[in-house]
Amino acid sequence: MDFITLLGLLAGTLTTISFVPQLLKTWRTKSAKDMSLPMLISFCLGVFLWLVYGILLPSTPVIVANFITLILALMILGLKLRYE
Amino acid sequence: MDFITLLGLLAGTLTTISFVPQLLKTWRTKSAKDMSLPMLISFCLGVFLWLVYGILLPSTPVIVANFITLILALMILGLKLRYE
Repeated sequence: MDFITLLGLLAGTLTTISFVPQLLKTWRTKSAKDMSLPMLISFCLGVFLWLVYGILLPSTPVIVANFITLILALMILGLKLRYE
Repeated sequence: MDFITLLGLLAGTLTTISFVPQLLKTWRTKSAKDMSLPMLISFCLGVFLWLVYGILLPSTPVIVANFITLILALMILGLKLRYE
């Protein structure tokens, strides 16, 4: 694997795992009032398009990172809608 | 401009502008307690690496989106640290 792909995978790992503590915090506190709903909706839509972009490029880091991020962000969006 | 680049720019626009309502909300309510600090730190680091990845690829959508996202995410991180 070349250096650029490795760097992309590291970048994707960091942006993707960042949503894990957020998901756990929202789940634990049952509060997401400080999170913006338009932010979450726009972010999920954008991540979905990044996923399609990654498939078309093709770029493995873009595909893997955005696929997992989409699942985590949709779960946070679901909790936000549930706790409002 | 080809379709793939256009799609990437649209994806980047959505994920990037999603941080504007979040920044405005945090600024207005002066509260970011529902936002996870490890999330913001890991996300900012990851976006910085995505920016480097975009420069090396090179991919204009990845560069532009992550440059603006990095600025917005750092501002949200700054507000989070200020209001805690």
